[in-house]
Amino acid sequence: MNRLKNDLLLRALRKETVERPPVWMMRQAGRYLPDYIKLRDKYNFFTRVQTPELACEITLQPVDQVGVDAAIIFSDILVIPQAMGMEVLMEEGKGPSLPKVVKTQKDVDGLITKNAENNLKYVYDALSLTKIELNGRVPLIGFAGAPWTILCYMVEGKGSKTWDKAKQFAYTQPALAHELLQKITSVTINYLKAQVKAGADIVQVFDSWSGILSPGDFKIFAQPYLLQIADALKNDAPVILFPKGSWYALNDLSKSSAAGIGIDWCITPQLARKLTENKITLQGNFDPAKLLAPIPQIKQWVRDMIDSFGTQKYIANLGHGITPNVPVDHAKAFVEAVKEYSLVTS
Amino acid sequence: MNRLKNDLLLRALRKETVERPPVWMMRQAGRYLPDYIKLRDKYNFFTRVQTPELACEITLQPVDQVGVDAAIIFSDILVIPQAMGMEVLMEEGKGPSLPKVVKTQKDVDGLITKNAENNLKYVYDALSLTKIELNGRVPLIGFAGAPWTILCYMVEGKGSKTWDKAKQFAYTQPALAHELLQKITSVTINYLKAQVKAGADIVQVFDSWSGILSPGDFKIFAQPYLLQIADALKNDAPVILFPKGSWYALNDLSKSSAAGIGIDWCITPQLARKLTENKITLQGNFDPAKLLAPIPQIKQWVRDMIDSFGTQKYIANLGHGITPNVPVDHAKAFVEAVKEYSLVTS
Repeated sequence: MNRLKNDLLLRALRKETVERPPVWMMRQAGRYLPDYIKLRDKYNFFTRVQTPELACEITLQPVDQVGVDAAIIFSDILVIPQAMGMEVLMEEGKGPSLPKVVKTQKDVDGLITKNAENNLKYVYDALSLTKIELNGRVPLIGFAGAPWTILCYMVEGKGSKTWDKAKQFAYTQPALAHELLQKITSVTINYLKAQVKAGADIVQVFDSWSGILSPGDFKIFAQPYLLQIADALKNDAPVILFPKGSWYALNDLSKSSAAGIGIDWCITPQLARKLTENKITLQGNFDPAKLLAPIPQIKQWVRDMIDSFGTQKYIANLGHGITPNVPVDHAKAFVEAVKEYSLVTS
Repeated sequence: MNRLKNDLLLRALRKETVERPPVWMMRQAGRYLPDYIKLRDKYNFFTRVQTPELACEITLQPVDQVGVDAAIIFSDILVIPQAMGMEVLMEEGKGPSLPKVVKTQKDVDGLITKNAENNLKYVYDALSLTKIELNGRVPLIGFAGAPWTILCYMVEGKGSKTWDKAKQFAYTQPALAHELLQKITSVTINYLKAQVKAGADIVQVFDSWSGILSPGDFKIFAQPYLLQIADALKNDAPVILFPKGSWYALNDLSKSSAAGIGIDWCITPQLARKLTENKITLQGNFDPAKLLAPIPQIKQWVRDMIDSFGTQKYIANLGHGITPNVPVDHAKAFVEAVKEYSLVTS
């Protein structure tokens, strides 16, 4: 294992003093990059995900081209349903679909759990290859979807505005929902541990749809499984939890085994600090749509954001994935503004 | 004007003592009702909206069939862009689209403002007719979209997951955005005043997309216009503001001229009371997906909700519109549970 030349992200997650905040962007390996588009036009989604050389190349693009302080492996949260035996289709620009959804006890019983993580060898290979190619330049982030979010897709079969079917499943068959959530959690823990073994320095858990739950339902259907994952991984690698929209859970999660919590832009940095009692590293929370504004304006907003979070126990990031319509120069400006911050204020 | 036989909603909004909370449901005149479906299959959307007899019939359905404590006029928030000269198409089950969107100063200059509300005579006729047909049984609610939400549709041209274009417009051309927001606000104020004149006892302002804004941007692009509307209407009728997702604005809005604030389920009643310092009537916040659970469970959840809000300065409602897949009996159970509440606890 190479020693890291840039370990800002790891130090921020260990609450150590940093000279400036580390910066990366959710979906940084994605459609706003022309070189990614070239590969997308040549190889379909799961070919890109399942071919370690392609996943590695895509993962490195934003490190080389945008200058972020971390790489995040190119993959998808829906590899877990796949590993558990479900078919997942991905139509370019249309989002994922799962033709056979989970509805009944029999469906839950039919899911593969034992050694399911072994079906994802291509992810570990991609991580190992990327780790070598990175040669210690920046840390490598592995990731998985949170159990609630994975349940949403397994039950609903595709994206949804209201996630009615997933909620109906959880609200009317709570025991079965918990059985499913536990199965997903167990597989996810093994999967994340294997990612760390393969080279991930950090893991992030994306609860993309936790924010559709009330605070009470989050505590029932999302939080226990996030905590389980954070606990299970605590001796393996720092864990960042990103329960999008679930600002109400910040206090509870700040007391978990997680090293960091990601937040979106719908809460002020000040309130997030207050709710987490300044005990944990926070990550976020730039509105991705602001990357469409002129560069000087982006840079000013980034400075304001860092002013609000403070430079310590902080990871500069977006509050959600970067969108395809962001000019590369604007993404670069975001990263540069963070890197320039200490100079601006010194 | 008939005296109201059931004035619970008005009394709750005036913070008067009520024997039980009033109850109604957002989108209560909608697709979960078989009689609505019959009219939908016979007349297209804008025919239903623009024909006072049809709008009246649809408005009365949930009063007759579900037993709610208020009628809300059947209409659409996008009648305002129409009145201001924009074309709005509505494809059944697909949502609205506006073929020619607002992008430039010229587009904003081209919008009709002077007497634009006069283009919506069919709404006033529907209100007057409904008022007569209601014969004082329950109050009648008029409504409009909030300026930020209307801007979203005018600029984006259709529904969106991220509302990128609307945000880009606001973030990169803020002066023009404010000019547009002010035009929408002025027309909306005249429109709501005319609705009150025609028979609306209460008006609600739906900011369906305010929750995509950060607290800072809400204060810039949404809040001033909500406050303007509440101020302008305060001597006409009680105003309920529903800034969906914008829990962070509750304290500010509780100090406004509004009589009530609607909230969704992503904040606990307890915190909402705390943030509003128990100064204002709150409306909400049942997760509509919970109406898909068995009836005894629905009734228990409703009792829990009222326990949390308290029976005073409270309007029982959903946290968002009722979905088409809710059985009518379940909608009825929701209403009944509120009506039974005082009996349960006495």
